[in-house]
Amino acid sequence: MSAHTNTSTIAFSGAGLDRADHIRSDPAALEALMDWRARLLRLDGLDPVIDPEGQLTWGTLSDAAVDSELVFLGLAGEKACFAEVTQNLAGSVAPANPRLWAAMAALDAHELATYGGARALVDWHARHRFCARCGAGTVLAKGGWQRNCTSQDCKAEHYPRVDPVTIMLVEHEGRVLLGRQPRFPPRRFSALAGFVEPGETIEEAVAREIHEEAGLRVRDVSYVASQPWPFPSSLMIACHSHTDDPAITIDMTELDEADWFTRAEVVQAMAGDEAARFIAPPPFAVAHHLLKWWLEQ
Amino acid sequence: MSAHTNTSTIAFSGAGLDRADHIRSDPAALEALMDWRARLLRLDGLDPVIDPEGQLTWGTLSDAAVDSELVFLGLAGEKACFAEVTQNLAGSVAPANPRLWAAMAALDAHELATYGGARALVDWHARHRFCARCGAGTVLAKGGWQRNCTSQDCKAEHYPRVDPVTIMLVEHEGRVLLGRQPRFPPRRFSALAGFVEPGETIEEAVAREIHEEAGLRVRDVSYVASQPWPFPSSLMIACHSHTDDPAITIDMTELDEADWFTRAEVVQAMAGDEAARFIAPPPFAVAHHLLKWWLEQ
Repeated sequence: MSAHTNTSTIAFSGAGLDRADHIRSDPAALEALMDWRARLLRLDGLDPVIDPEGQLTWGTLSDAAVDSELVFLGLAGEKACFAEVTQNLAGSVAPANPRLWAAMAALDAHELATYGGARALVDWHARHRFCARCGAGTVLAKGGWQRNCTSQDCKAEHYPRVDPVTIMLVEHEGRVLLGRQPRFPPRRFSALAGFVEPGETIEEAVAREIHEEAGLRVRDVSYVASQPWPFPSSLMIACHSHTDDPAITIDMTELDEADWFTRAEVVQAMAGDEAARFIAPPPFAVAHHLLKWWLEQ
Repeated sequence: MSAHTNTSTIAFSGAGLDRADHIRSDPAALEALMDWRARLLRLDGLDPVIDPEGQLTWGTLSDAAVDSELVFLGLAGEKACFAEVTQNLAGSVAPANPRLWAAMAALDAHELATYGGARALVDWHARHRFCARCGAGTVLAKGGWQRNCTSQDCKAEHYPRVDPVTIMLVEHEGRVLLGRQPRFPPRRFSALAGFVEPGETIEEAVAREIHEEAGLRVRDVSYVASQPWPFPSSLMIACHSHTDDPAITIDMTELDEADWFTRAEVVQAMAGDEAARFIAPPPFAVAHHLLKWWLEQ
């Protein structure tokens, strides 16, 4: 069943599990699923444990520490799938690393999505052990889709974060704007990106980010695709836009470089040609799909 | 300058302020703006204080309590605009109420957007005085676009929440699905909605919500529009979809009713006709725009 990630699928989407929302708020139903038949996702910290066939590995609930919190990921057929919230992740800020990228490349699209969703949720629990409203401890609730404050004066309910991020192509006379963040590997260029802020639409966030990072004014922002991105909890929202004035002013705190690239240059980079002007974003990244979409227009 | 909210604009979008992101991370520049020329948005709790001309009212920084935290909203021309994080909001969960809706109806589109963004941010600060990772106190940073943990062992940085929510029309043979939540006023129907969860795309969230709430399987999910919704911190993402099988199974914990409505029924309701089969969502709601968009297709 092993297969390399299908590059036509958006990575981290398409999990095969039924999230079975109705079970989360039914403690008896949830309890009934937590028996010897239930499966526990094996994780090494936040990283996946992958078997020789290139698949996620699963144990049983007895593999979990006796005092651990368990997150209900969903149903695979009749089997309930869980993940353990490991105490020693409390300091994690969930950076990705080359070993993790290599491990994830072995997974097929469904398994990568299952892993990504589990990772985001486990990481959120590990970093939200206390109530942001009153500082008291919190406990896992609703199968891991909520945490509740333990202070009787507060009782605040907290929900997993999903942070919307816009990532965008800007087009001018057949060329697209791509930039280099300081942390990128050499010669890598990708689409500009930034978090959506309170008080703005997706389209306004796109326009603001491009103006902040590259000094461009854009028009006709359109939605292209979205992607869950579990580092640690983003929802990538990929958009396309146009500008009438291509004069770039780079915000050097955000970008090392930004420039315009022709269709031919993007084709060559996406083909992995070593002579290409730049190295394209990898298939995991929604920016890869955004460029592919643009070439197909 | 007073004007009623333009129903062709998506409510809470189109704020006239320049967010001036570069100033947030420049303490000297921020400090220089915090003088007698700066403006302080007047709020009554989280509600706007509106003058007889139907505009937001602004004071100066000297109106703020001496120990209060100030959020930098952005620049209006050369004037820096701030809002005060009021201590007594700590218990707030920011429900909307009829008095608030009436007050907001007096504001023009730009002012409504400025108010909405300020409300979301002030409310977030009031409900995030403690570090979710370690339980220590947090302090406002970067002009209010961040809170930092005060524990030297932790030093976690926290960012304002923006929670993506899908809201969607389902279409079948020229009719659309609308539902009634238990909290709705009598005869009001609107589009179904639900939060995007970790590990799913916008399109997957739409399909899951419709299946959970109405038992329908949808295809061809497409993005229509987005809206910031400051109750307390949502990003509404409006979508359209199709189903081939219109047999509805309602989740009675989420909806009182759900049914199919013809184009003529939607036209009549959107016109505010008292004889209409239902009362349409109000112009503030992105569901209103979604129905308007659908009628124009």
